[in-house]
Amino acid sequence: MKGADIGIIGLGIMGQNISLNFERNGFSVSVYNRNMPPDENRRSAEFIETKCRDKRIKRLENIGEFIRSISKPRKIILMITAGASVDQIITELLPGLEPGDIIIDGGNSYYSDTDRRLGMLEEHGIAFIGAGISGGEWGALNGPSIMPGGSSNVRMIIESVFQAISARLDDGSPCCKWIGPGGSGHFVKMTHNGIEYGIMQLIAESYDIMRRVLNMSVNEIAGVFGQWNSGIGASYLLDITVEVLRRNDADGCPLIDKILDSANDKGSGRSMINAAMELGVPAPTISAAISARLQSMNREKRAEISKAYSLNAGSLTKNGEILGDLKESYFLSLLTVFEQGLELLYAASEKYEWRLNLADIVSVWKGGCIIQGGILNTIENALKQSQSLPFFINNQSLFQLFLNGDSPWRRVISVATSTGIPIPAISASLAWIDTMRSERLPASLIQAQRDYFGAHTYERIDRARGEFFHTRWKD
Amino acid sequence: MKGADIGIIGLGIMGQNISLNFERNGFSVSVYNRNMPPDENRRSAEFIETKCRDKRIKRLENIGEFIRSISKPRKIILMITAGASVDQIITELLPGLEPGDIIIDGGNSYYSDTDRRLGMLEEHGIAFIGAGISGGEWGALNGPSIMPGGSSNVRMIIESVFQAISARLDDGSPCCKWIGPGGSGHFVKMTHNGIEYGIMQLIAESYDIMRRVLNMSVNEIAGVFGQWNSGIGASYLLDITVEVLRRNDADGCPLIDKILDSANDKGSGRSMINAAMELGVPAPTISAAISARLQSMNREKRAEISKAYSLNAGSLTKNGEILGDLKESYFLSLLTVFEQGLELLYAASEKYEWRLNLADIVSVWKGGCIIQGGILNTIENALKQSQSLPFFINNQSLFQLFLNGDSPWRRVISVATSTGIPIPAISASLAWIDTMRSERLPASLIQAQRDYFGAHTYERIDRARGEFFHTRWKD
Repeated sequence: MKGADIGIIGLGIMGQNISLNFERNGFSVSVYNRNMPPDENRRSAEFIETKCRDKRIKRLENIGEFIRSISKPRKIILMITAGASVDQIITELLPGLEPGDIIIDGGNSYYSDTDRRLGMLEEHGIAFIGAGISGGEWGALNGPSIMPGGSSNVRMIIESVFQAISARLDDGSPCCKWIGPGGSGHFVKMTHNGIEYGIMQLIAESYDIMRRVLNMSVNEIAGVFGQWNSGIGASYLLDITVEVLRRNDADGCPLIDKILDSANDKGSGRSMINAAMELGVPAPTISAAISARLQSMNREKRAEISKAYSLNAGSLTKNGEILGDLKESYFLSLLTVFEQGLELLYAASEKYEWRLNLADIVSVWKGGCIIQGGILNTIENALKQSQSLPFFINNQSLFQLFLNGDSPWRRVISVATSTGIPIPAISASLAWIDTMRSERLPASLIQAQRDYFGAHTYERIDRARGEFFHTRWKD
Repeated sequence: MKGADIGIIGLGIMGQNISLNFERNGFSVSVYNRNMPPDENRRSAEFIETKCRDKRIKRLENIGEFIRSISKPRKIILMITAGASVDQIITELLPGLEPGDIIIDGGNSYYSDTDRRLGMLEEHGIAFIGAGISGGEWGALNGPSIMPGGSSNVRMIIESVFQAISARLDDGSPCCKWIGPGGSGHFVKMTHNGIEYGIMQLIAESYDIMRRVLNMSVNEIAGVFGQWNSGIGASYLLDITVEVLRRNDADGCPLIDKILDSANDKGSGRSMINAAMELGVPAPTISAAISARLQSMNREKRAEISKAYSLNAGSLTKNGEILGDLKESYFLSLLTVFEQGLELLYAASEKYEWRLNLADIVSVWKGGCIIQGGILNTIENALKQSQSLPFFINNQSLFQLFLNGDSPWRRVISVATSTGIPIPAISASLAWIDTMRSERLPASLIQAQRDYFGAHTYERIDRARGEFFHTRWKD
């Protein structure tokens, strides 16, 4: 009897939906769940009994049976929480596997953990893939964006398996391409998530300006986001923002006003900042977005401070011009978020010798994932012309957007600053741009201070790079 | 024959100066250097032959002799670069040590490495101390600020040894207090360094506004910083800024204009951001300062972009009012930098059960270190009244500064934004404050989006915390 085409470990909602997606696309699937809390066990039993009836999905009760039920070379996808449990399940799998088998980690593991696991497994002749999967529950079922990287010898197998279940663009091309060696697949997914944090914060700040400065109703704001949501401005995150804002609560009032303003995270944005710090890449807008979420969690303190220290700045009335400005500031900030993510990928690719193809990566994000949007076509085309960053400098139409949006962007920051609305991400984006536009920066003063107190030396503008000088400041 | 009071490993400039400092204060010192590159070996030989002549500092040629030369319980201070070499030297020391001996790591090790080493050494009966030492070369020789933490059983010994060589305030109190258990000493030093990055960036941004917006000469700017540098505004970093700006090059022009504007770092700021991400603490101003340094390093790219995309915004002429505003914006931003650092310490203390005394820590920073300044007296007093953060909310005089400085701060940001001068740290500080002043934030929209695409659930303002809701958005 022929074994299953795919094995899947973990029957949370993501594991369930990936299993159904594979089955729908012609794969037979073996599934296995470790011992879980009773209610999770119950939910996965329910899943098997109801959603998998008449489907080629079979649950195996122990890991040995599970392994033996899969045809060789085995392809086993872990859909479990990142961390120690990934190491644990690999340890349990290893004795039953044979050289040539493939383990795929479909979670959000940190890329250096993936590197480490890959090294260990390849010593046993087992291939290992870190596959970033984006698209949430819905994407997992109907077609996610998939970013696989790892053991290059199984690249062809991995592409054919994942392209069968990934999202597809209108032209039929799959939202899954081979990323590169080592932990590069997980690195790219982590960067995707950081970009997602950045965009969400930019939308939130734009909302806040409309709400608190322009005193617009939730419904009016939904209308404005709806207008932004077309052409290169169209995006999944604007889609769902409009739907969220249109949703009323049971009492007929906007649901958004009942939702607690304390934003959680699951850590992948913070991981991206860790990686950025390791690699020495500035990602200030994404960093500001993460800080904003973390600050929102301190809700009791905010309530206390806002009482003692309320802001009496005036607010503007609804104003067509500032709305136009706001669209520019949102969109240009959005471009800097993508740029910061791409610069991180570029730096990682150089350091780890991954030879990432940035245009390919952007194309994988064009469908199935949270950050998909019209702008990705433009970015992809710019990167195809030149991998040189920033992508918007070498592209005439994108560059023109910056020239046109420059003054509106500045006006938005002035308005928000004067009325007391925090816009850390929009501000960080402009500061990032203005820094890149400054031929001379006051970093010379920082170097002088460092040389003063720590004898760290400095270079000179009138001497070759790599020649270091120290001044005896106290003489 | 009585052994040496102290052993020091590592004869870089910091190790040399700490040795001389101990000897000057009555300690006999054994020193040991591992095999180093020839020119370093030559420099340390020179040090021994010249500066240690007639002093009670003795160099030992091998590690066994070095260990035996020190009186028990041995106190051995590592003045070497953080990283694998610390583990290596500990491994070399261990066979020669006896229970009760003490190893002190005086470098900038990451706090979790210190925790790990402490656990390992205590199993052998050896005490381990992570001691942050700030003050650069000069401080190491004449009295640094010292932040020791680790094996609590040797607290008394450590305090008496380090208080003997630390900086002292005018009232005679030493700039060294016991910090707490585990890696807390190194954690506090890392936070000190993050604060240092923040302040240096604030000074640099203020300089940039005076230089590029107000078209002031270097000498005039030195004068302004000199005026800021008094009372609670006085600080070591302003001291040296004035001296740096007053220094001319051989041609009689300001040296600052010859220094390359590419700011390096040694990683401790980035480590602080890693820790902040681990602990979920927002430190946006410090994060912005680090991003600004990293961005400054990309000098060729900046030159290229500034040509293609130069800024034509107008500049203001020198203006008394905006100079007054600038002082306010600098000083209030400075307070947020300290606050962000203290919040990180508070969170670490809670998580690791360190029971840190924030007022004590601030008092250690009052002398000897890079971030010393008049404001630390005020912060210390505020924290003595209440450890509750933000420290400036419960203190009437500090709070008044925020009320008075609010509008000037906003004006500075508007001016810099409209003229194209990047002020990421000043902007991040105001956004941080405005976020804390917002009883309601648009984080509710972020939670709704997360629930939409990832079924991450949300809480409601009209229900108890801890009750989670999920909307079926697509129905």
